[in-house]
Amino acid sequence: MAPRVPNFIADFFVYETAKSVVVKSWSVGIINRVVQLLIILYFIGWVFMHEKGHQQQDTGIESAVMTKVKGLGKLNNHVMDVADYVVPSQGGSSFSIITSMVVTANQTQGRCPETDPKFNCTTDDDCMKKLGSNLGNGIITGTCLNSTNDTKWWCEIEGWCPAEDDNISQEPMNAVENFTIFIKNSIRFPLFNVTRGNFPSSLNASYIQSCHYDPVDNPFCPVFKVGDILRHINQSFDNITDKGGEIGININWKCNLDYNVEYCNPSYFFTRLDAAFENSNASKGYNFRFAKYYQSEDGTEHRMLHKAKAIRFEIIVSGNAGKFKTVPFLINLVAALTSVGLATVFCDIILLNFDKGADEYKAKKFEEVSAVVSESANNRLYEGSQMSNKALEKSSNDSGTFSIGRQETHSPSNQ
Amino acid sequence: MAPRVPNFIADFFVYETAKSVVVKSWSVGIINRVVQLLIILYFIGWVFMHEKGHQQQDTGIESAVMTKVKGLGKLNNHVMDVADYVVPSQGGSSFSIITSMVVTANQTQGRCPETDPKFNCTTDDDCMKKLGSNLGNGIITGTCLNSTNDTKWWCEIEGWCPAEDDNISQEPMNAVENFTIFIKNSIRFPLFNVTRGNFPSSLNASYIQSCHYDPVDNPFCPVFKVGDILRHINQSFDNITDKGGEIGININWKCNLDYNVEYCNPSYFFTRLDAAFENSNASKGYNFRFAKYYQSEDGTEHRMLHKAKAIRFEIIVSGNAGKFKTVPFLINLVAALTSVGLATVFCDIILLNFDKGADEYKAKKFEEVSAVVSESANNRLYEGSQMSNKALEKSSNDSGTFSIGRQETHSPSNQ
Amino acid sequence: MAPRVPNFIADFFVYETAKSVVVKSWSVGIINRVVQLLIILYFIGWVFMHEKGHQQQDTGIESAVMTKVKGLGKLNNHVMDVADYVVPSQGGSSFSIITSMVVTANQTQGRCPETDPKFNCTTDDDCMKKLGSNLGNGIITGTCLNSTNDTKWWCEIEGWCPAEDDNISQEPMNAVENFTIFIKNSIRFPLFNVTRGNFPSSLNASYIQSCHYDPVDNPFCPVFKVGDILRHINQSFDNITDKGGEIGININWKCNLDYNVEYCNPSYFFTRLDAAFENSNASKGYNFRFAKYYQSEDGTEHRMLHKAKAIRFEIIVSGNAGKFKTVPFLINLVAALTSVGLATVFCDIILLNFDKGADEYKAKKFEEVSAVVSESANNRLYEGSQMSNKALEKSSNDSGTFSIGRQETHSPSNQ
Repeated sequence: MAPRVPNFIADFFVYETAKSVVVKSWSVGIINRVVQLLIILYFIGWVFMHEKGHQQQDTGIESAVMTKVKGLGKLNNHVMDVADYVVPSQGGSSFSIITSMVVTANQTQGRCPETDPKFNCTTDDDCMKKLGSNLGNGIITGTCLNSTNDTKWWCEIEGWCPAEDDNISQEPMNAVENFTIFIKNSIRFPLFNVTRGNFPSSLNASYIQSCHYDPVDNPFCPVFKVGDILRHINQSFDNITDKGGEIGININWKCNLDYNVEYCNPSYFFTRLDAAFENSNASKGYNFRFAKYYQSEDGTEHRMLHKAKAIRFEIIVSGNAGKFKTVPFLINLVAALTSVGLATVFCDIILLNFDKGADEYKAKKFEEVSAVVSESANNRLYEGSQMSNKALEKSSNDSGTFSIGRQETHSPSNQ
Repeated sequence: MAPRVPNFIADFFVYETAKSVVVKSWSVGIINRVVQLLIILYFIGWVFMHEKGHQQQDTGIESAVMTKVKGLGKLNNHVMDVADYVVPSQGGSSFSIITSMVVTANQTQGRCPETDPKFNCTTDDDCMKKLGSNLGNGIITGTCLNSTNDTKWWCEIEGWCPAEDDNISQEPMNAVENFTIFIKNSIRFPLFNVTRGNFPSSLNASYIQSCHYDPVDNPFCPVFKVGDILRHINQSFDNITDKGGEIGININWKCNLDYNVEYCNPSYFFTRLDAAFENSNASKGYNFRFAKYYQSEDGTEHRMLHKAKAIRFEIIVSGNAGKFKTVPFLINLVAALTSVGLATVFCDIILLNFDKGADEYKAKKFEEVSAVVSESANNRLYEGSQMSNKALEKSSNDSGTFSIGRQETHSPSNQ
Repeated sequence: MAPRVPNFIADFFVYETAKSVVVKSWSVGIINRVVQLLIILYFIGWVFMHEKGHQQQDTGIESAVMTKVKGLGKLNNHVMDVADYVVPSQGGSSFSIITSMVVTANQTQGRCPETDPKFNCTTDDDCMKKLGSNLGNGIITGTCLNSTNDTKWWCEIEGWCPAEDDNISQEPMNAVENFTIFIKNSIRFPLFNVTRGNFPSSLNASYIQSCHYDPVDNPFCPVFKVGDILRHINQSFDNITDKGGEIGININWKCNLDYNVEYCNPSYFFTRLDAAFENSNASKGYNFRFAKYYQSEDGTEHRMLHKAKAIRFEIIVSGNAGKFKTVPFLINLVAALTSVGLATVFCDIILLNFDKGADEYKAKKFEEVSAVVSESANNRLYEGSQMSNKALEKSSNDSGTFSIGRQETHSPSNQ
């Protein structure tokens, strides 16, 4: 050391590295390299290729969905167009296509008999028991009434009259199968400031007006036929229109931005979202009620109540993008390099337990220092300073050999 | 080595392992094992049991929510049913129940005085200053008018007339407390292709029609009473209907798919979503305006404007599922095994600094090679090749001992 | 060892630590410390300060958004207020402001000629080819009709008549630029049970009624002027109203709850969400159709069809909160401490390959045990037990030196 440098600085810039034992054994050597190879393969295959460990991931995808349904059908002898059967009308990511309706026209506020068999009665007492029920079409007054239409007696209600009778078999609007849904999905990965649409800007208008999405033939066509979607999820049209249902259109973006951004395109999946209740005997399908309100010239309000069975579509956009970034790459590279060293853990077990020369390796690998012995050695230190280094060696002799066996606590002496 | 194998191949299959010092000291040995035990407990308790490190997690839960509100109430002497008080009517995951309304009937396009005290005036100049204001019920014309109903003067507006006057005290629809919300939530974990509903398919219709959710008695009942929800979040009905509010119904799925899928059931939490503005003196509660449009026989359009205070419900579905998978299990197992080795970092500090035999351990653990000495040794190498091995030992003597103390830079000589 | 303790227990509490070689070389020592410093800086700068590795993160932000648009405009000589131009009216996180409309009044069910040039015809055959088309305003009947208004012939449709003719140039509602959007965003971090609003409760009502958001001057004002938003995203009003469009208002919460919760405030970003289709020649902008339904005194239903171009606003709330927690802090601290040891990997490469004393270090670092030699040594063990320790040393001599060079497979002998 240069004499001007203080000792503690010299000590600080001292470099420590582990002392290694080199074992020239074919069996362990090959096992070691095979295990190292497996670790490297794991890192290349799983961490880097599968998990894209060298990339920074952006999972905060921003998405905007616009939809437009096209098609015309006949329901209850009315021609229905988009403004009639799509609710809500704004063309968002969640919308329902009405497939059949029970219409109760000209309802006004008043009193009238119920229509639900739950509210059949013989005396007023039957109806008094049902006061406060939430299941009727109006507030139960407690009176038992003779309906004008049939010979049965029903509890009287106060509310919108006449009460809705939804026990009518309905023909669904069969044309729905031919309706098309045009989906415009614009996404953005804010981290990389990459904006993509679900179809190329170069697609011309006449192609979009005539094409139908097909995963093989028209993967970029953004127009989906309802019948095609039903076929993809193995649902018959009759099955879904019988009770109504909910269908998910998943748009999945998985983008590797290390390649050209033109390869960043979505894939589409379809699911029946209410599949969990397929076998439920309590509540199947999807329907909702809405009303259109009218006013007579005399100012009285009346309404037309609709109970609509519908197919609800939910456009679910998910995805993530990855791009090479130095920091995650270096972290994983360092992890890979240091993990290669883990092979020794495995090989040591073999070497120290199953190999022929196990005892010998043990002797070589482990150097023993015993607290008890060292304490006596420390005592001996006071006897003579010239003994100190001998004591540190624990037991040295003129032949230069010393015990490093783990099991052997006594050092052997030669001659 | 077999003589046919080239040297570089033999070198390649050499196995290196760290040379270890074995310390037979009770104190350090016990500390070492205790620290190792703590590390193992951390991995078992935190990584595997708490964080489920042996499982692959699916956080991309797909969810579909359908809601149906039931109940009848009286508001402004009208009986209101679902089609009247639920907006939007489609039964999605976000909907409002109107609790009170200010109705301004028979509005037509025209000119009329304002109703808001902000637009009181004495001269036209007062109103000219307010031209372009967004806060009125219509476009300010700049004229100061004498209202027919009172003795005050108001700015004139152009727009829907008469202007809405919302300074009317309203009775809320008290029956809302007894309304029920039926929630059908179907979820899917796409990674494991597991589909679940928030109630078992075996639940029969009559149970669902009569039950009310209760975390203890009816945890599987999917029907929630509005009054019960308010009780869960410690809100009084009067408090929330006074200004309107927003309530979140959280459906949380935490599924361990290593067990039977039947145990994969949701739990429900309720929160007042607009809690942050509870004490705000600027804007409290929730209300919105909507209009119903009518047409007279002569073709003129008029509308009925509603300002509705409402409770908005948001059904928020979250959750994740875990299932045993070999890769994460192995990664965490290897991490656990290698982390056990970290105990040495801690024990070395104790051993080398606080133990009685610290110096001795230091001597045993550290073997020194000094660059300066080695350079002179290198020089000496040229003097005689028989010296080389001696030089590598840095300072050897016939008694076979050499200095390995870290502090001692000069090797001691015996005799 | 105390004689009463069984051997296997004594063996269990033995402590193993790696034997180290201490290299007193300035060059390697400095490199070692520099690399260690870089590792420490990486952990402090990246892991702890940038990635907040000492904090538990809550990414499951719960959010509730209420919006209220204010403003008055003139469209087609009608004064439009909020109830007229905002759809849906409930003030949720997604809403459209209608900027222009094509109104087709007094439609009734019937038969009439088409209006779209696609359905021009000369004979019925032209129309028969278009049967089943989804692109018309009604169901094509297959008849070619002479329109009453012009000299052209059009296919006849069945549906709502008269058919909409949207080839009308429209004046947008210019006042939209001055409309304001009031956003009330209440969030909650469920893990830390922290609830925050996007503006302080102390803000008084008159400030909110008069302020406009500005990132510098009014960062807490929750009222956004449409014109300001357009300026932030560099879009002209004419550009977006020409075809309609979609704008995202991102509210981002990044909260460090180690500081006072008062510093947990959102930041706002604006984006044109449909930017991906800016140059698309197929489908630009945003429009939708909706109808208002009327009933004549005689009970016939007619409707007023609106094709509205609109600006859709989507309020997107994202964010996360972090708070100090012991477990992640300790995990990252341990990772940091052990990673400091990785410097040796790098330094060993330098030391063993590029340093002047590389061979010497190699000799010191690596101690060799050869399987072949050891096997013969094992054989020799049977010849005489007094040889065993010599064999373990592989080749010892009375001068106490032994070969530990990696390249030298033959041990040198002195004298």
